[in-house]
Amino acid sequence: MSKPLNLHEDRLFPTDPVQRGVARRLYGEVANLPIISPHGHTDPEWFATDTPFSDATSLLLAPDHYLYRMLYSQGVPLEALGVGSRKGASPADPRAAWRLFAGHMRLFRGTPSAIWLNHVFAAVFGFDVALEAATADFYFDRIGELLATPAFRPRALFERFNIEVLATTESPSDELVHHQAIRDSGWRGRVVTAYRPDPVIDPEHEDFWVSLDRFGRLSGQDISFWNGYLEAHRVRRRAFMAAGATSTDHGHPSAATADLTPVEAEALYHRILDGVWSKEDAELFRAQMLTEMARMSLEDGLVMQLHPGSFRNHNANLYRSFGRDRGADIPQATDYVRALKPLLDRFGAEPGFSLILFTLDETAYSRELAPLAGHYPALKLGPAWWFNDSPEGIRRFREQTTETAGFYNTVGFNDDTRAFLSIPARHDVARRVDCGFLARLVAEHRLDEDEARELAVDLAYNLAKQAYKLAGPPP
Amino acid sequence: MSKPLNLHEDRLFPTDPVQRGVARRLYGEVANLPIISPHGHTDPEWFATDTPFSDATSLLLAPDHYLYRMLYSQGVPLEALGVGSRKGASPADPRAAWRLFAGHMRLFRGTPSAIWLNHVFAAVFGFDVALEAATADFYFDRIGELLATPAFRPRALFERFNIEVLATTESPSDELVHHQAIRDSGWRGRVVTAYRPDPVIDPEHEDFWVSLDRFGRLSGQDISFWNGYLEAHRVRRRAFMAAGATSTDHGHPSAATADLTPVEAEALYHRILDGVWSKEDAELFRAQMLTEMARMSLEDGLVMQLHPGSFRNHNANLYRSFGRDRGADIPQATDYVRALKPLLDRFGAEPGFSLILFTLDETAYSRELAPLAGHYPALKLGPAWWFNDSPEGIRRFREQTTETAGFYNTVGFNDDTRAFLSIPARHDVARRVDCGFLARLVAEHRLDEDEARELAVDLAYNLAKQAYKLAGPPP
Amino acid sequence: MSKPLNLHEDRLFPTDPVQRGVARRLYGEVANLPIISPHGHTDPEWFATDTPFSDATSLLLAPDHYLYRMLYSQGVPLEALGVGSRKGASPADPRAAWRLFAGHMRLFRGTPSAIWLNHVFAAVFGFDVALEAATADFYFDRIGELLATPAFRPRALFERFNIEVLATTESPSDELVHHQAIRDSGWRGRVVTAYRPDPVIDPEHEDFWVSLDRFGRLSGQDISFWNGYLEAHRVRRRAFMAAGATSTDHGHPSAATADLTPVEAEALYHRILDGVWSKEDAELFRAQMLTEMARMSLEDGLVMQLHPGSFRNHNANLYRSFGRDRGADIPQATDYVRALKPLLDRFGAEPGFSLILFTLDETAYSRELAPLAGHYPALKLGPAWWFNDSPEGIRRFREQTTETAGFYNTVGFNDDTRAFLSIPARHDVARRVDCGFLARLVAEHRLDEDEARELAVDLAYNLAKQAYKLAGPPP
Repeated sequence: MSKPLNLHEDRLFPTDPVQRGVARRLYGEVANLPIISPHGHTDPEWFATDTPFSDATSLLLAPDHYLYRMLYSQGVPLEALGVGSRKGASPADPRAAWRLFAGHMRLFRGTPSAIWLNHVFAAVFGFDVALEAATADFYFDRIGELLATPAFRPRALFERFNIEVLATTESPSDELVHHQAIRDSGWRGRVVTAYRPDPVIDPEHEDFWVSLDRFGRLSGQDISFWNGYLEAHRVRRRAFMAAGATSTDHGHPSAATADLTPVEAEALYHRILDGVWSKEDAELFRAQMLTEMARMSLEDGLVMQLHPGSFRNHNANLYRSFGRDRGADIPQATDYVRALKPLLDRFGAEPGFSLILFTLDETAYSRELAPLAGHYPALKLGPAWWFNDSPEGIRRFREQTTETAGFYNTVGFNDDTRAFLSIPARHDVARRVDCGFLARLVAEHRLDEDEARELAVDLAYNLAKQAYKLAGPPP
Repeated sequence: MSKPLNLHEDRLFPTDPVQRGVARRLYGEVANLPIISPHGHTDPEWFATDTPFSDATSLLLAPDHYLYRMLYSQGVPLEALGVGSRKGASPADPRAAWRLFAGHMRLFRGTPSAIWLNHVFAAVFGFDVALEAATADFYFDRIGELLATPAFRPRALFERFNIEVLATTESPSDELVHHQAIRDSGWRGRVVTAYRPDPVIDPEHEDFWVSLDRFGRLSGQDISFWNGYLEAHRVRRRAFMAAGATSTDHGHPSAATADLTPVEAEALYHRILDGVWSKEDAELFRAQMLTEMARMSLEDGLVMQLHPGSFRNHNANLYRSFGRDRGADIPQATDYVRALKPLLDRFGAEPGFSLILFTLDETAYSRELAPLAGHYPALKLGPAWWFNDSPEGIRRFREQTTETAGFYNTVGFNDDTRAFLSIPARHDVARRVDCGFLARLVAEHRLDEDEARELAVDLAYNLAKQAYKLAGPPP
Repeated sequence: MSKPLNLHEDRLFPTDPVQRGVARRLYGEVANLPIISPHGHTDPEWFATDTPFSDATSLLLAPDHYLYRMLYSQGVPLEALGVGSRKGASPADPRAAWRLFAGHMRLFRGTPSAIWLNHVFAAVFGFDVALEAATADFYFDRIGELLATPAFRPRALFERFNIEVLATTESPSDELVHHQAIRDSGWRGRVVTAYRPDPVIDPEHEDFWVSLDRFGRLSGQDISFWNGYLEAHRVRRRAFMAAGATSTDHGHPSAATADLTPVEAEALYHRILDGVWSKEDAELFRAQMLTEMARMSLEDGLVMQLHPGSFRNHNANLYRSFGRDRGADIPQATDYVRALKPLLDRFGAEPGFSLILFTLDETAYSRELAPLAGHYPALKLGPAWWFNDSPEGIRRFREQTTETAGFYNTVGFNDDTRAFLSIPARHDVARRVDCGFLARLVAEHRLDEDEARELAVDLAYNLAKQAYKLAGPPP
């Protein structure tokens, strides 16, 4: 007998009957709102070509480091799970990899991955038995069949998911051909890009030189000079805006910003270009470039996002064999108060400038981020991020930021995922947990239910749309 | 139709019926206890002159950075809210400022400010409709009328609020004329001062030189020598004790303490006086002065309070235009374990010495503060402070300190506010949340209800009175 | 009338009726499972000689710094509580000390000490009135009588407590005679040792030289050379394994690890031996030795435990008079991400190598420890430790680690106690709180009850047995 799979209609709501009743009513207002996904990592090629996805492993497992890192942590080799390495594609048979995955599902008990997966299995694919060793083949076959049908092609899923707008992230050295193809295709789905200049800003990025070279050529600027380099950013930002971008995104090791004089900045840039830079120079250059990006945002209106605090590629051996983004990025303690001061002293109260802050260090929520966002006009708080994009994580975010920053200095939810099929699941989790949080405030007589109803819609839909300037019509 | 305003009798209690029942009973024991307010920032002139307050904006909005920072964070200029700047009083019409405020009330949803404000509106002024744009004028007019009546003059409110004792904080360079006037007036309200020597201890304080000069003259000591400077503190402490002071208070950037030799301390003091000090010297001088203050507390019995960890005046432009205390003080990570060791090695187990610790860095609760207070005889924990003086903040304080420090190494509640009318609201919130916390322990069979009843009274009343040595009769 | 004492059958369960119902059922599955105690500090001599314990004070109070630190924090001198000092045994009369303790029981309200004590009083000694001043003598007499009976001798209690295996910790310079005596005695209780080499690894340990000397002699190696010193560790590890050890344990100030070349390591060792080392050398030596211990674990299979982050002997005066382990060890902020990298770069993915991490800094749970354990095959998370081994602490551990690391990268519970009689109480608390946590997940439809049932047994029994390789038969 297989274990049944069903999504309980009250899942993630508080158990207390009063709170649950309020949560249900609030959730009823937001459950079917369109999805605003202003920050994520899906591949625009999917929507450009609308090619069918191939199989369960290559769609759901092999690209998702949330999943395979957990099996790796218990001794399962990545090669066996279909994960490609620097040597090329995985030699593993997709079905064998899927079976291995299915046999380890218990590792995900209590994790958001289990919730997202089960949502995808039940709501997207229609399964009513759980994935386990005994159902691995049934799952693999059935998913394969469905993916071959028109209803499971990328654009059809996009529409079925009720996505109003979806942002991808690209490097300035990307030619944005897929975004062009989407616009040229006449398809009405709104997929926009976001300007993610890390590879041409971070001298420690392994693709720095390759990216910089392509960036210079694409922009048509002479980037061997500081002003040419800055101008190249302006040119590429305009190109990204033409591809729908309303935001930039910056994934730095720290939140450090700097405010050098032009002469100092130029000298630093030349040390970078000449390859005679120290680790401190690299940090300072990233720091200065955040302030330059802020300055450009004042000119062109792009909303700025900062995602700091990850120690990337912590597992040296794995990095050597498998490369980046393999589940070995580990958060570390992150300072915002001193780090952001140079930028904020410049632009913290500039009308129209908006900087959305994320963190992997939850200690910053109540200590630094909420007080900063509750003061500076330019600052807003992004939602619970990455490891914290989970029921407990989202709840802690609200509990620790709301009293100081309020709700209106936050920007609603974004999914930050490359797992396309999980997007509705992730938004659903956030909506449920936010409704549960609001329900507790109502049940404790700290908020009226009509206020909570308005807030539920704001958190699920309006705030993201406003904060990311996505209210306009599709381009 | 205006939105009704009412304070639910069960507000802030847990929703669970068993816990709520216990919470109600516990709260019934403490709801009407007199208020002990051992640390705050009200203006003694109010009670000295008993002059009526003028209008809603200048009483409730313009002096309260908790409130106007939230509007500022959403782009409302401080000038428009009645907030004075370095150039002088705000040019804003008080009624216009009030309307602006009323129109932004939704920003406070889910914040303690909303709870405190609604308490003041309903319980102090008797409103039964909520403040919003449509009721702004009604509020402004009605508050103005009430403030002109005898029942709303400072002393009458003090008595109506059932305040048993209220401490203000003054600089050693303050002549304490208002406290003298209160004592001379024959009014029986007990308003005492507290010794807050930051302006004459912190070389980085913008009023350092002016304060130091006045301090020297008031004390009658030659403060051009280290021993004279120390003696001046002793003299002024005695003067403060004559004005009812039972405590000192120290608001330092960090919790650093030092234990220099007299020769080293003297040399450091002369570097300060000669204006040839570094940032490290300033930190070391503050650190040494905490130890000197502790030594004096052993002599004169004043209880010592330490409020560290705020990066003051973080917004440089705002500081230039508007000055200190404008909602731009941001907490930062704060170490206690190493910082306090020099002082504790000296006085940590001295009978009769008491040092009350506060924090803006909640990570210190379970990691450092509870273990320190659960060991050192001299240490007690102050309540959840500032941004953390909120329902979630108070709850976290109890959850994270009680298991290691117990309840009896904490000192009950203090409001730390300059918003006089909100004092009953703040104590009410703390009493409700503490009762809710105790109720959970009872409902989970971790505490007997008779123990909880005793604790509820201790937390609401006895502990503050004992810890701050306020048990004596009014002077 | 004395206050009754009874252990409520639902204590520590959530109050919500749905959650409580699930918690009860889950707890029913684990309440009577044998105790696996893989890490603790009981004295093997008790089980070797089976000598009766003498009296309440010397058994329950004088050796338990959890208890006497709380009275000390309120001004009670340690001498009066039966605590021995560097001068020798306490001059206090045990009965007088017990009375003093009984009169201060209210200090423990809301603490785990109160829960553990009441469990010991009710379940081990059969009391049905609470300990307070009025019952102090009754308690003292009755405990004394019971301790003199066969049923209260160490081995009888061990069996009554249903302990399947109990690990003590010894220094490499310990001859393990008591463990030998236990094995020679024919008693079937399984008491094993663990290899705790801090005294011969930490040059800052006050017993370093004495321990090192004895270590060299016991091992029969010439430890005046680096390779001889390493070989001595191998020899002693084998001797510990013969006494049942399956693990090593390391209590370091930080989590620092290093990966020096053999030449560098040898030079460092000689600086230590020559007494010409700096504080940095001491830190580096400890760091390098963790990596050496990991290397040896790969050879001999001992599981490695790291307990970092305590500032030992913080109270200098108390340390001078009373020595180590007097309740004055204070946690501090602890980095794992950078600290562990050298060791993990070497052995983080080695099959068969296992490093169990503990923390006193709860901020590391969600930020560093769960992401590390959710990635590295070698890493597992130890349970909430020391000050955090409490209902709120255990709950926070699960809330903050489960979503990222899952349950299967944790190792169940260990009690880490020298308070032998409290072992069943501590395991009972952990089982109840874990069942309560699981019950919430079930009630919120985040986990099926059959999964929760399996997990409850894993957390209470299986995981510790597996992680510490204790599945084998008694030696």
